[in-house]
Amino acid sequence: MMTKIPARLHLAENEIPKTWYNVRADMKQKPEPLLHPGTRKPCTPDDLAPVFCKSCIEQELDDNTREIPIPEGLQEFYRAYRPAPLIRAYFLEKSLDTPAEIYYKFEGTNTSGSHKLNSAAAQTYYAKAEGMTSLTTETGAGQWGTAMAMACAFYGIDLTVYMVKVSSQQKPYRKVLIETYGAKLIPSPSDTTEAGRKILAANPNTGGSLGCAISEAIEVALKTPNCRYVLGSVLNHVLLHQSIIGQEVKTAFHKYGVKPDVIIGCAGGGSNLGGLIAPFMGEKLRGEADYRFIAVEPASCPSFTRGRFAYDFGDTATTTPLMKMMTLGNGFMPAPNHAGGLRYHGMNSTLSQLYKDGYIEARSEVQTDVFDAAIRFMKVEGILPAPESSHAIKAAIDEALECKKSGEKKVILFGLTGTGYFDMSAYESYHAKTMSDYIPTDEDLAKGFATIPEIPLND
Amino acid sequence: MMTKIPARLHLAENEIPKTWYNVRADMKQKPEPLLHPGTRKPCTPDDLAPVFCKSCIEQELDDNTREIPIPEGLQEFYRAYRPAPLIRAYFLEKSLDTPAEIYYKFEGTNTSGSHKLNSAAAQTYYAKAEGMTSLTTETGAGQWGTAMAMACAFYGIDLTVYMVKVSSQQKPYRKVLIETYGAKLIPSPSDTTEAGRKILAANPNTGGSLGCAISEAIEVALKTPNCRYVLGSVLNHVLLHQSIIGQEVKTAFHKYGVKPDVIIGCAGGGSNLGGLIAPFMGEKLRGEADYRFIAVEPASCPSFTRGRFAYDFGDTATTTPLMKMMTLGNGFMPAPNHAGGLRYHGMNSTLSQLYKDGYIEARSEVQTDVFDAAIRFMKVEGILPAPESSHAIKAAIDEALECKKSGEKKVILFGLTGTGYFDMSAYESYHAKTMSDYIPTDEDLAKGFATIPEIPLND
Repeated sequence: MMTKIPARLHLAENEIPKTWYNVRADMKQKPEPLLHPGTRKPCTPDDLAPVFCKSCIEQELDDNTREIPIPEGLQEFYRAYRPAPLIRAYFLEKSLDTPAEIYYKFEGTNTSGSHKLNSAAAQTYYAKAEGMTSLTTETGAGQWGTAMAMACAFYGIDLTVYMVKVSSQQKPYRKVLIETYGAKLIPSPSDTTEAGRKILAANPNTGGSLGCAISEAIEVALKTPNCRYVLGSVLNHVLLHQSIIGQEVKTAFHKYGVKPDVIIGCAGGGSNLGGLIAPFMGEKLRGEADYRFIAVEPASCPSFTRGRFAYDFGDTATTTPLMKMMTLGNGFMPAPNHAGGLRYHGMNSTLSQLYKDGYIEARSEVQTDVFDAAIRFMKVEGILPAPESSHAIKAAIDEALECKKSGEKKVILFGLTGTGYFDMSAYESYHAKTMSDYIPTDEDLAKGFATIPEIPLND
Repeated sequence: MMTKIPARLHLAENEIPKTWYNVRADMKQKPEPLLHPGTRKPCTPDDLAPVFCKSCIEQELDDNTREIPIPEGLQEFYRAYRPAPLIRAYFLEKSLDTPAEIYYKFEGTNTSGSHKLNSAAAQTYYAKAEGMTSLTTETGAGQWGTAMAMACAFYGIDLTVYMVKVSSQQKPYRKVLIETYGAKLIPSPSDTTEAGRKILAANPNTGGSLGCAISEAIEVALKTPNCRYVLGSVLNHVLLHQSIIGQEVKTAFHKYGVKPDVIIGCAGGGSNLGGLIAPFMGEKLRGEADYRFIAVEPASCPSFTRGRFAYDFGDTATTTPLMKMMTLGNGFMPAPNHAGGLRYHGMNSTLSQLYKDGYIEARSEVQTDVFDAAIRFMKVEGILPAPESSHAIKAAIDEALECKKSGEKKVILFGLTGTGYFDMSAYESYHAKTMSDYIPTDEDLAKGFATIPEIPLND
């Protein structure tokens, strides 16, 4: 029996999970299938084969296999930076004077600075194993691009990153970091692709967009021999890879005799939230345990709390397969928000289905409140959080303060997805009180909804 | 019996050291005493009391107590970010095809990004315990200022950081980070002190210097009630606090049955090197074991390899106590080097004595070679190293390549003191091939040596 939980709930190397957990296997109501953007019929593996690696496609389309083995050559990489710390927030608890216990899983100790590396490593491993010699991807805020650059350096595979031009200008050091790992970084739109040239011809001074960067990266992957495209969120195989987050937490909680009541994650495309909650959601779906799950999204981009459950495209250029998801419409233009990783119009289809079916709660937060929470947290817990992660901090603090009122001794877990080293300009704007809280009006939302395609079976 | 060493040699929370190790207790030839800058007689505790905290002064002057307890209220903070990872560099070994085993102690997982937090936490703890309400310090590259800001946020004590003006302009995000933790940051020279005003009057456009920032910080500490000054390197009590680095390594090596042959650290003022090697040096001094110790310094600021062993001032304003040390002269102007943390004219007195007595080897490296090594390391081990730390990486790689030639299966340990997130401009300059390798000429050195004061007993 443990008398006191240590500040860090450590796992040994041989306790790092050797399988991923596929939550879809335990869902009675499965997420709706991907639809081909042309035929609007369910995507087959062959439809996706020119773009994605074979193993990732298999995982994307597999709604039934519960445990999927992590290949040994990938476990080797995971051992270089995992287990990620699971920390008891003793100092935060004390500062809030709450009877609640607060825990956070910190995914920011690897150089990429976030959980993104878990899927970057997996996708790169498979690409290498399938004989690919290069990969392409896009990056906005830069975490995914950095993670991919690290993984490709490790596995010895070429990488081209299309970085949204305005981001590459605002975050020049992200660019340097990605290049230092040996990747080729191209500000998007560029003259290296037809998609880029077309956009530049129409608007030579555009700062670019994630949608455009995706189009460029896919075009190059399709045209280059032994090359595939990789994506860092939204898709089900990405969430599968991220299930290692929740599985490590579950193993550690079991080892130390802790049972969470509330599990909180920030939500953009869903990769962190999905990974963190997966094994706990499995228990809930199987009726073995009950937990509250809370998704926290920015008020400026509220796909869960104000979106529609509908088939929509993943990109603004409407070229990807259609996904049934909570969406603000592929044409929704999120106002500037410093949590760049959460500025996405849609939400992973599995999480969307679980939300629709009542398994997940969601709330949205304005960014000044999020930064208030971040600073409250970092002063006592030491860690500088990413703005994305700070959405979860905000909700965890609110839950703990509720416990203070009610006297309940709840156990709260949240995901601290990454560090804010490359977000100091956001902190600067917070201090200078030049940070605004953008909340889209109903008219703004209506414009976005108007871009959702008409597909039979929408509701 | 372990069959295979894990990638991370983990210590449990209850294995974090509860005492610091004071290597001076085991030295037959003790370091020479501090001399009062006015009387040039050995400093008494009373001489130092207006500037430093009492507990730190006791530790500074204690050459005899071997084990010094870490107070429980400080252990609590250490548990929030320690043990620091000790990593077997399997991937680096493989990429070098060496029979050597390579290990590194990584001090960069806390937000301050380096080992500096170990002493910042200790000095702040003591200040609080002694009833101080505020502290002052200076910072150049910014690691120390960040560490102090974290520690002062944690213990609830006010902090004023004088940051070398040119650094605060070059690294605006360091400034934001320090302010985000709640510290007051003042670019130095400033009009807040007599020292600053005097320098500004003479040279209104100066970018400042560490010497000037120290003078400002000490002046404010002396003038403010319940305020003391803290320093992040060079002094013996700082090295004492850093001994936790080496003690954690020693405990972990013992646990996993590893015995190092060579121990390598980068050397600026000596805080990391001294802390890393301390307990191993103790064994060597007591005749219980033998190890090679290698200090690695920048060729641009070679206090070990080209300096003199003499009494000298710690600052360029010649106001600090005199220390008997390896020095390039307090007036030596190191050429620009991206490893700002290693640009110091002198070296801790204990390490200087040990070097003089043949216990430590030293070598110097030019910065392009250091960055070559950094990039070789990060591509396989993943971690983005600080330029300072990369000096140790360079030497570790060279030692491992020597083993490849000789076929020897040596065990190499090096200190990876921190991360390079705030050094991307240096990496950028490396990629752009605009990085120069500065090596001072004999004439440059002669100018520095001319500033070493004449003190009886110099050799």
